[in-house]
Amino acid sequence: MQALKLAQVDGRLTPVLDEQYPQPQAGPGEVVLRPLRMGVCSTDLELCKGYMGYQGVLGHEFVAIVESAADDAGRRWIGKRVVGTINCPTAECEFTRAGIPEHARSRTVLGILGRDGCFADRFTLPAANLLEVPDHVDDDHAVFAEPLAAAFEITTQIDVPVDAMVTVLGDGRLGLLCAQVLKLVNPHVRVVGKHAEKLALCEKWDIAARPLADVGLRQDQDIVVDATGSPSGVITAMQMLRPRGTLVLKSTYSPTSAGADKVDLAPIVINELTVIGSRCGPFAKALDALGTDRVDVVSLIGRRMKLSAGVELLKAARKPGVIKVLLEP
Amino acid sequence: MQALKLAQVDGRLTPVLDEQYPQPQAGPGEVVLRPLRMGVCSTDLELCKGYMGYQGVLGHEFVAIVESAADDAGRRWIGKRVVGTINCPTAECEFTRAGIPEHARSRTVLGILGRDGCFADRFTLPAANLLEVPDHVDDDHAVFAEPLAAAFEITTQIDVPVDAMVTVLGDGRLGLLCAQVLKLVNPHVRVVGKHAEKLALCEKWDIAARPLADVGLRQDQDIVVDATGSPSGVITAMQMLRPRGTLVLKSTYSPTSAGADKVDLAPIVINELTVIGSRCGPFAKALDALGTDRVDVVSLIGRRMKLSAGVELLKAARKPGVIKVLLEP
Repeated sequence: MQALKLAQVDGRLTPVLDEQYPQPQAGPGEVVLRPLRMGVCSTDLELCKGYMGYQGVLGHEFVAIVESAADDAGRRWIGKRVVGTINCPTAECEFTRAGIPEHARSRTVLGILGRDGCFADRFTLPAANLLEVPDHVDDDHAVFAEPLAAAFEITTQIDVPVDAMVTVLGDGRLGLLCAQVLKLVNPHVRVVGKHAEKLALCEKWDIAARPLADVGLRQDQDIVVDATGSPSGVITAMQMLRPRGTLVLKSTYSPTSAGADKVDLAPIVINELTVIGSRCGPFAKALDALGTDRVDVVSLIGRRMKLSAGVELLKAARKPGVIKVLLEP
Repeated sequence: MQALKLAQVDGRLTPVLDEQYPQPQAGPGEVVLRPLRMGVCSTDLELCKGYMGYQGVLGHEFVAIVESAADDAGRRWIGKRVVGTINCPTAECEFTRAGIPEHARSRTVLGILGRDGCFADRFTLPAANLLEVPDHVDDDHAVFAEPLAAAFEITTQIDVPVDAMVTVLGDGRLGLLCAQVLKLVNPHVRVVGKHAEKLALCEKWDIAARPLADVGLRQDQDIVVDATGSPSGVITAMQMLRPRGTLVLKSTYSPTSAGADKVDLAPIVINELTVIGSRCGPFAKALDALGTDRVDVVSLIGRRMKLSAGVELLKAARKPGVIKVLLEP
């Protein structure tokens, strides 16, 4: 089958479209899935740069049909249209028992850590990770379940008062989803970014949007969500936050990133800031919002491509201005 | 009068004992204080290295007698034995109105920012900053009010459940105070440090103490308080914390510190950690704990010196093993 994989080629980590990749086999408790739609995420682009030291098939955003199951655990899912959480515990531990399997000590992560991803004709996941997609949520919406769930994670972690001053830093894919989710609970949310066409989308959603150059750094924000993925985002966020304000880190950066040596954690102590890391989130909330059109994801679709486009689709996702690249089989 | 000040000497920031320093004048709302006992803090040592770019008289830990007052605001304090908070707002702002004057946009800080400190024969503070010391709290105890209040700040910021696993990283002055304060609400608190004689003190307080080399970094702590003041402390703390655990930053470090370029914030996101900066705290709680002997500060006194010892007292405070240097006039 075809699969877009990350592999060492001539000693360099390289994305490759492999047309002879072996069909995956469902392990105990697992199902085989046939993707209908896949999304390209910034994490995929970071993996190509060496993040997590990952090698294997890329991709973790999908809506798919369950084709087969290894055993009774998955049998009832066959034929269903599903989305799925991406963390797969490989052993019980205190965190799986505590109901946070996404933090299991021993785990694989779809297309990110020790488990082939969904940018392929077929892929596998544990049946326990699946959620059925309601009929009224079409594929173009359902494929956003994973990143939208990550945006909803913020509202499960912190209280966002209706009168709080809230800034989302970064107008990329995740930033625009976070802004829409926060707008559901807070009318003051604004996006601070760099790209005119993305900021224009915010206006359409009645979300205030400003270029970074036009924004005063006045320690007047109660909550700042950093979705820039850059050291400068963290520095800017600390300058925007009032004393005892909350910085939500939705993205991060490598210590070797340009400017990482300029990040000074002293303002966290001096201004008694709270910093909260935020990763994967509640799929059920995301599906519900997608089904009731409370979040606009269709406007985020920048380009549609075929999986057979291979490395071209990663290049397309890297272009400034292209918001979301969706893949079809 | 004599004052231990930080000044540029031959183009280098240098601590100097000045025996001809001008007597301070109380401004509106202020009082003049005569220190009875002063404490040397790690922040004083950091200031000598250039932290905050401070120049002026050092010192912010004291118990003192109020000698005179500029006006009615301070008159009732004359003759009283007091401790005092160190942040002095210089203008009203939304943070002073919100009841957090320690975070005022415009402020001086005793011996740290724009205001001469207490390592002098006399110094000034606003009357609004003063707290009277009860008679049964002697000078050796009262001088610990400021750092002990900073330790109590943690318990005003986060809930410390009685069954939580809690580590204080760093066995310096502040770490040992934090450990004792946390021990009041949690029996599991342990100190991880480097100095045998300081860890031995913990045993005396029935607080578990371990050398860092003997501790597994197993993501099994609910709360870690970093009081190391070093980048390696932050890195170690992130390795100790369970997913969704809480890192309290009591100390910080400069981005130019050795190892600062190794600090990777990705674990905050991946493990969804909460990081809370913690600075000055509630003096009333500290005085209460000192008055009821719930915290042992006397064992922390490593050396007593006279202010006239000048720069020697800073050298003494830098010595490993010396816990707290107390100064007398």
